Amino acid sequence: MTITLAIEGSGFTSRTRDEVQYFDHSLFLIDEQGIIQSVLEPGDERYASEKSQAQERGIYQALAEGSYLLPGFIDLHVHAPQWAQDGTGLDEPLEVWLGKYTFPTESKFADESYAHVVYEDLVNRMLATGTTTAAYYATVDRKGSLVLAQEAERLGQRALVGKVVMDDAEANPDYYRDPSAEAAIEETERFINEVAELNEHSVQGVYPVITPRFIPSCTDEALRGLGELAERYQSYAYIQTHCSESDWEHGYAYERYGKSDTHMLREFGLFTRRSILAHSVYPNEEDMRVFVETGAIAVHCPLSNAFFAGAVAPIRRYLAAGMHVALGSDISGGYNPDLYGAIRQAVTSSRMLETGVNRDLAAGERGVAGSALTLNNAFYLATAGGGESLGLPIGRLEAGYAWDAQVVDTKFASARLPIFESNEPASDIFQKIVNLAVPENIRTVWVQGREVVRK
Amino acid sequence: MTITLAIEGSGFTSRTRDEVQYFDHSLFLIDEQGIIQSVLEPGDERYASEKSQAQERGIYQALAEGSYLLPGFIDLHVHAPQWAQDGTGLDEPLEVWLGKYTFPTESKFADESYAHVVYEDLVNRMLATGTTTAAYYATVDRKGSLVLAQEAERLGQRALVGKVVMDDAEANPDYYRDPSAEAAIEETERFINEVAELNEHSVQGVYPVITPRFIPSCTDEALRGLGELAERYQSYAYIQTHCSESDWEHGYAYERYGKSDTHMLREFGLFTRRSILAHSVYPNEEDMRVFVETGAIAVHCPLSNAFFAGAVAPIRRYLAAGMHVALGSDISGGYNPDLYGAIRQAVTSSRMLETGVNRDLAAGERGVAGSALTLNNAFYLATAGGGESLGLPIGRLEAGYAWDAQVVDTKFASARLPIFESNEPASDIFQKIVNLAVPENIRTVWVQGREVVRK
Ligand SMILES: [Zn+2]
Ligand SMILES: [Zn+2]
Repeated sequence: MTITLAIEGSGFTSRTRDEVQYFDHSLFLIDEQGIIQSVLEPGDERYASEKSQAQERGIYQALAEGSYLLPGFIDLHVHAPQWAQDGTGLDEPLEVWLGKYTFPTESKFADESYAHVVYEDLVNRMLATGTTTAAYYATVDRKGSLVLAQEAERLGQRALVGKVVMDDAEANPDYYRDPSAEAAIEETERFINEVAELNEHSVQGVYPVITPRFIPSCTDEALRGLGELAERYQSYAYIQTHCSESDWEHGYAYERYGKSDTHMLREFGLFTRRSILAHSVYPNEEDMRVFVETGAIAVHCPLSNAFFAGAVAPIRRYLAAGMHVALGSDISGGYNPDLYGAIRQAVTSSRMLETGVNRDLAAGERGVAGSALTLNNAFYLATAGGGESLGLPIGRLEAGYAWDAQVVDTKFASARLPIFESNEPASDIFQKIVNLAVPENIRTVWVQGREVVRK
Repeated sequence: MTITLAIEGSGFTSRTRDEVQYFDHSLFLIDEQGIIQSVLEPGDERYASEKSQAQERGIYQALAEGSYLLPGFIDLHVHAPQWAQDGTGLDEPLEVWLGKYTFPTESKFADESYAHVVYEDLVNRMLATGTTTAAYYATVDRKGSLVLAQEAERLGQRALVGKVVMDDAEANPDYYRDPSAEAAIEETERFINEVAELNEHSVQGVYPVITPRFIPSCTDEALRGLGELAERYQSYAYIQTHCSESDWEHGYAYERYGKSDTHMLREFGLFTRRSILAHSVYPNEEDMRVFVETGAIAVHCPLSNAFFAGAVAPIRRYLAAGMHVALGSDISGGYNPDLYGAIRQAVTSSRMLETGVNRDLAAGERGVAGSALTLNNAFYLATAGGGESLGLPIGRLEAGYAWDAQVVDTKFASARLPIFESNEPASDIFQKIVNLAVPENIRTVWVQGREVVRK
């Protein structure tokens, strides 16, 4: 493979769930497919020759002092149309929020030109804050949903996109649902094929996602049909839905089936290695075993959970059990489009689970010991953990991985990070970046070797 | 009074704790002392004449469409020197965080040139994110502390600044404490006078603050002496300390005195209408009555509390009891220097207190019903609530109040807020601004009529 890009810089990448590795003036050699072919350290034999060769060929870039590389972030739960209502209505209870805000908003996206405007804005915003891969719910309308896949593809973001299925006439408003289970399945299959076709010309990858909104909005017929599609298209389609988000949702499946939603999704063929299960706050021990056996992904959305879940997902327990866990913004249940926010809130929420929140209980009885996530843990979830979960070579700045990366300028004039010592330890710089960076600090973003943001 | 500034714009200001008022193309007439003399609506008789008069005099400015006015924010708990370590060490337990990070950091501020660099950076950063008033802890060193007051004064921020007292040789490291109670009291008195002198030439106001770090770091002699200073300088000095932050701290006063820290601070003369009590997570019913009787201020620091307090302060209860409540960032226990972050986390944390966090408890037994703060409540705390607490005419865009204001541009190219409809309700725009604005959206900031930020 020909090297087409060489980047020299310092930065950070997850080594394990607990450890972050600092690299100092590494030279990343990236090939024409956007894959990191090798990473050379200043002490390496080939470092000087590869660098001067890249310089001669005009493909060399060096980060300025004070700028650092991080892997691009992976956001595995985004309701893209809800960007239009992001930040609003959160003082309302869930049913008001859905009926008064969300469904009317989503129904507008049958208008492809409206969809284009909102989706372009969202994808650009996410790229500009370092999110290089995202799993999106679009809307019920297939054509409007395709606009999202096209925009992500065009703007260079790696995207997993689903046309939403919600076909139960009892559970959904007439103005916003699939007309029937058959239609839902047909449109989903057509959408899968359209996205697969789009993907043929994509550098970074655009993947179709089978997307029952959640069990309560779908008929058994639709769920069964989608499970069949999941099997037929398992080589490239993903599956996403909401799983055990709230007490109500967790209880709903028990009422309808006498079993958990995890169990039922598996029965319908929708709980596999390629399933992206948003929230997953309430899976019990048996459900957790299903996660581990199948390799399905629990997507932690800590901000949204504070509003709608009624508890904090015990992520350390999930990791200890061997579950795949990733992070999600859950726009607009979680309003922050910036995954830095999700990393920070994951830590904050886990600390609150650890200690508890109710001062009227005794200190020892308030929380759940062993729940706290470190900043390194949360960074892992947003990067390497997301990549491993998806089974894609992304989320690490290592040979063999895609060059999905962001440059954080800690000295950018209007958003300088508080680094006043020339000998500040790298681990402190890392923590300052992850806790304090604002969008202005992110100056360059690449996806699969392609520069998609340069401010 | 001569009108020296006239601003026409739409925006938002708290009407009550629960309600936010939208104003549409109001004309604010601001006098030479930086006070809003009158606010005219487009329907008012004098609107057109005052506007054209101001235009003729070259003192008229109009906000662009898509830009909105908010009151400047009031941050009542900031450890200014900790800006140098902001964002770091939060995975450590409190005693490690203090010993390994905080005390070594603070001790550096005896070097006035170092203090100058860090304080200038912090004040500029806070102003740029709309914080027009702040209550600061500086350090033990008086001269270094004076640098902070000077910098805030010079850069135009309204500031309450304290030289920290921590004199107990048993409780504090030798390299970072007051040498004796007497010295602590003397230096504090000198600091009060120096800041009072600085204030004589200040437009916006710089106030000295008597600042025992917290009871556990001070001797009784120091506390008593500071209480006497509080009485002597009650006409312009404030008092600040930490109150009932954690189980440990709340329990500490009971061990030392058999009484709560609230009670003891009052006995020492340190719990008055001018007392700014950081955190105040654990005051019991009797302590809460002391807050109400004295009019002292509880400063809610929700992000910091997630790391070090072990519970969420029940702010709705405090408000219902009639306590003064304000917001604080608590840099660096809370790492976010931007009070938008504190507003958002106050809502998020209150929702988590409302529902609880531990999924293994039954839904009804997990949380504390009636705890949720609305976005309007949290905005009130950061603006009008902070102003009322301090007894200063700040925090509202109304006649008689200081012109402390920020302009949020919702259309700023690289940080456009997701407003896609021309008829978006003002209440939704408000929520989008408060939940989604990033520093780039804030374009202009005034304090007491003086423009301190123009990007
Ligand atoms: Zn969702
Ligand atoms: Zn503090």
